Amino acid sequence: MADTLQHLSHLPDGFGMDGLDLTISGKPLRAIVDQAGSTPLFVYSKAAMDRRVAALRQALPADLEIHYAIKANPMPAVVNHMAGLVDGLDVASAGELRLALKAGTSPQDISFAGPGKTDDELRAAIEAGIVVNLESEGEMARLAGAAENLGARPKVAIRVNPEFELRRTGMQMGGGPRPFGVDEEQVPEMLGKLAGLPLDFTGFHIFAGSQVLDTDGLIACQKSTVDLALRLSAHAPDTVRSVNLGGGFGIPYFPGDKPIDLQRIGAALAGELQRARRELPKARFAIELGRYLVGEAGIYVTRIVDRKVSRGKTYLVTDGGLHHHLALSGNFGQVIRKNYPVMIGNLAGQAPAETVDIVGCLCTPLDRLGDAVALPRADVGDLVVVFQSGAYGLSASPQAFLSHDPPGELLL
Amino acid sequence: MADTLQHLSHLPDGFGMDGLDLTISGKPLRAIVDQAGSTPLFVYSKAAMDRRVAALRQALPADLEIHYAIKANPMPAVVNHMAGLVDGLDVASAGELRLALKAGTSPQDISFAGPGKTDDELRAAIEAGIVVNLESEGEMARLAGAAENLGARPKVAIRVNPEFELRRTGMQMGGGPRPFGVDEEQVPEMLGKLAGLPLDFTGFHIFAGSQVLDTDGLIACQKSTVDLALRLSAHAPDTVRSVNLGGGFGIPYFPGDKPIDLQRIGAALAGELQRARRELPKARFAIELGRYLVGEAGIYVTRIVDRKVSRGKTYLVTDGGLHHHLALSGNFGQVIRKNYPVMIGNLAGQAPAETVDIVGCLCTPLDRLGDAVALPRADVGDLVVVFQSGAYGLSASPQAFLSHDPPGELLL
Repeated sequence: MADTLQHLSHLPDGFGMDGLDLTISGKPLRAIVDQAGSTPLFVYSKAAMDRRVAALRQALPADLEIHYAIKANPMPAVVNHMAGLVDGLDVASAGELRLALKAGTSPQDISFAGPGKTDDELRAAIEAGIVVNLESEGEMARLAGAAENLGARPKVAIRVNPEFELRRTGMQMGGGPRPFGVDEEQVPEMLGKLAGLPLDFTGFHIFAGSQVLDTDGLIACQKSTVDLALRLSAHAPDTVRSVNLGGGFGIPYFPGDKPIDLQRIGAALAGELQRARRELPKARFAIELGRYLVGEAGIYVTRIVDRKVSRGKTYLVTDGGLHHHLALSGNFGQVIRKNYPVMIGNLAGQAPAETVDIVGCLCTPLDRLGDAVALPRADVGDLVVVFQSGAYGLSASPQAFLSHDPPGELLL
Repeated sequence: MADTLQHLSHLPDGFGMDGLDLTISGKPLRAIVDQAGSTPLFVYSKAAMDRRVAALRQALPADLEIHYAIKANPMPAVVNHMAGLVDGLDVASAGELRLALKAGTSPQDISFAGPGKTDDELRAAIEAGIVVNLESEGEMARLAGAAENLGARPKVAIRVNPEFELRRTGMQMGGGPRPFGVDEEQVPEMLGKLAGLPLDFTGFHIFAGSQVLDTDGLIACQKSTVDLALRLSAHAPDTVRSVNLGGGFGIPYFPGDKPIDLQRIGAALAGELQRARRELPKARFAIELGRYLVGEAGIYVTRIVDRKVSRGKTYLVTDGGLHHHLALSGNFGQVIRKNYPVMIGNLAGQAPAETVDIVGCLCTPLDRLGDAVALPRADVGDLVVVFQSGAYGLSASPQAFLSHDPPGELLL
């Protein structure tokens, strides 16, 4: 198995094999591609999402809510499916807010974070009755002004930029100066001002980073987050009713990446929540996850359109590329490109026979899908499958680049 | 002037000032934004494009054709305008082919390059009667098969992967093993096979790199390209009727970047063309430019929605971001992010008063528009203008990321 999946030790939940075919939610890949009518194609597995949420429910304290951050995968069918599995949705724009409302989620279970909310977005949030995570005093003043005009009293939380840092994180979002949230040392003064405004204070949103694979780092961060929430609650103008502990749970993408230890994280969180509930008995506690919920549930499927040898190097040229999957090409925050796990999805289980480079169809040397990958011998017509592609794939890619047709997206 | 434009020594062609306003094609920025109705916004100047093409016509030999590579900016209005200025269009997909045909360009003046052309795209190219730049023997066989089915004899050129390298290039596309084109040493054998196929051989396409600011490097590369074209022409099965010398002309983006010396390049090219014409009297010679034609003709305009200080650092938070302008954020092939030239477009000519960081509205630390930029004091409602944004801007960005509304695009 490891032979055909490079550095993935086993197929992710929701995927299997049937003869030469990779299967997704039990269906053979070639049948799925036939059904879709063309490649490239993203395929997401409901079963994989279901099992991931079930694993979290089993490991985490029963009274910890799980929220889905729509930004990870905003495909409407995915948002609808996730809305049925989790306790709340986090949105980052008016567009994501519309998706959340269409999924039937109750406004009180939707929260809106983002450093540059426009006046239009703040009005949409007020009208929908969702919770606005305030990113600055300026935003608080703009929201209060809009609330006054609309005769409303919107629910708000303060997004806090903590002093502590989440180390070894894929993307650090707290510690030091940041455009996100309110520096923790400014929060007490801001809470004092908030008390005089037409805003319904609910609690705090503390998000320190994302794509963290260091279990101890996550546990330490959650402890610091609870400490901070309790410290700031002493200044709250009203009962604290919500604490969003952030997320940051990473998934393994690259050689050497190891999954996080959910059992240890759950045990530690149980202790933290017990402690926190003594001081904040009325609060809902939540973690906010995007990538961890859907990232391993999706694959990207492209077809080989050319096989060529240039000065000793063999290239498989596919009909896909960075216009569909920018992170795969190594151009979305990565300093050095590393290989995602890939396989030839219609030659599953076959032993590697050669080392090849996989590229996309775009006229740019940035368009790399796999560098020096060991694969069974593949030719024009075969299907290249990229795993770990369920989050920050299509929506995080420059789809209009070179004016190709959009790829398909299926939720099975 | 340099005070307010950071490292731009003067405003690009097509831009000026009127009181506190930046002007584009003579129109004040605030009037343009009012006309558009909202920000963010890309604004492109026809006058800037006109002057750039005129400067090229003046400097380059009269019998050298200028082609526009649509990938640089595929906005239909821009393609239509450019089609009226240049001698041909280069396309990289069936979608770009449709744009080129809609612009009224004659099929014989359209060529199609790209390493992963699908069978559907090859058929579309045959039906349109354009020139296909062959990237491999495999693609040649597929095209010949499709031609036979359609009873057609499509025009083809061979895209060559040269042995020489274009040094100090922003993006190297030739030399060593590459997925693009046919290794020059393989071309003679391929030409032998081509002679027996239902393909109408026209010539060669040799493209060594892009975004080059080294004038001497460009001149040396053009000489090597002509040498190579002449060498390969000895093996041609038919009269050579077209030689595409590639492009690669860069524009200054970052501190220290200097414009290329068009006069010197033109003088050198005149000599090269004279030499080449003696051996290939029936050939059209062309250079293919994208970024150089439209890159300096466009700006990206965003509005400040928040101004905040975090631990001593001042942030201007805008309603724009990397979902519109990925290259600006430093995430499109750059290893280290550098600042594009920016100004406050409604405070033109004002002296810098502070050093600020400019960020976008997205919840990611990648969303940087300017780091430690010296600007006049700006506040919520002011307009941040990013220059050098006419190429590889909107179409090369992940527009669906975080589900924001699309920005406006205006050609004035």
